[in-house]
Amino acid sequence: MSALVESAVYRSVSAVVQKDESAAQEVFKNEARINQIEIEVDEFCVNLLALQQPMAADLRLIVAALKINTDLERMGDLANNIARRAISLIKEPVVKPMIDIPHIAALVQSMVRKSLDAFVTRDPDLARSVLASDDAVDNLRRASSHELMSFMESDPKNIRQAMDLLSVVRHLERIADHATNIAEDVLFLVKGVDVRHHAEVAER
Amino acid sequence: MSALVESAVYRSVSAVVQKDESAAQEVFKNEARINQIEIEVDEFCVNLLALQQPMAADLRLIVAALKINTDLERMGDLANNIARRAISLIKEPVVKPMIDIPHIAALVQSMVRKSLDAFVTRDPDLARSVLASDDAVDNLRRASSHELMSFMESDPKNIRQAMDLLSVVRHLERIADHATNIAEDVLFLVKGVDVRHHAEVAER
Repeated sequence: MSALVESAVYRSVSAVVQKDESAAQEVFKNEARINQIEIEVDEFCVNLLALQQPMAADLRLIVAALKINTDLERMGDLANNIARRAISLIKEPVVKPMIDIPHIAALVQSMVRKSLDAFVTRDPDLARSVLASDDAVDNLRRASSHELMSFMESDPKNIRQAMDLLSVVRHLERIADHATNIAEDVLFLVKGVDVRHHAEVAER
Repeated sequence: MSALVESAVYRSVSAVVQKDESAAQEVFKNEARINQIEIEVDEFCVNLLALQQPMAADLRLIVAALKINTDLERMGDLANNIARRAISLIKEPVVKPMIDIPHIAALVQSMVRKSLDAFVTRDPDLARSVLASDDAVDNLRRASSHELMSFMESDPKNIRQAMDLLSVVRHLERIADHATNIAEDVLFLVKGVDVRHHAEVAER
């Protein structure tokens, strides 16, 4: 599930940045598979809870897996949305170099990778490094929204292209939010504490 | 939790539609409380799983509650985002009557109400009626995005206001998506079947 979603995010970004339509098609092709695995993982977790009646750390692992599963499926959806915007952007002549998008995308991809590695290796420090990146993504997103807004205001002909780019940036930010959720679940899993909305998160 | 979130959605919409700044302030004030209850509900569910080792229907109820809890918290966040846009819109002179927004908002609010009622009364027909509304919201959102895009193209001075309105519509659509998730969880809870990505959903 993680591998499929990580590769969907990677391909959707390639589709936008390298105008690679075949990468977008790969994303569309794998969506049904991701949706199917989400259901299988959920069923597997519920069966484990029912049949094994796990305690303590095992119970936390299964609850974390249930939540991470949902986040992964949503990230897959967002990759799909980015791939759809890529198709629209490929058709248009480039009037705006995408200075920020490769930068934001690289940061978001590294958050996705780290949050999943943190889950697999149960590494709280790696999870915490994901929380630390979330604010950087928000700031980059805000700067790029302002830039794209001025680009629209400079010439209404730019509006449709700018809206596609804004949408890509917004979807990337939401993927980063899901990576942050996963990192929070890893901290809950490893340390048994809930860091959501808490001081530890505020330290980011 | 449901009552707080439902009222946050309601107030955020009032803040936009009636330019009611005090309604927006109420939304901001309740956000911390919603975040706190999310953590309490999660802890309560995990404790129930650990201490009661529930089976069958009880187990499904707790898993559904864990998922619905996450959706509710996200809806609270989105209401907060809408309230922030309301503050920005209140400051601007209205150049565009918000024909569509009250309409979309009414539909989304009824989806939220029905999905939560369906959970409380375990009513599969009510849950299914929420799934049926999701496509209507998507279509309204698409129509209103096109209209707002033309409004921007007609005069670049409209861009900032149109971006605020677009953002409100997008957040409303995401609230509808969470209501749909809740309705799907109710069907899983009541019937023990997973309708996500399945034929039943495609019937919408």
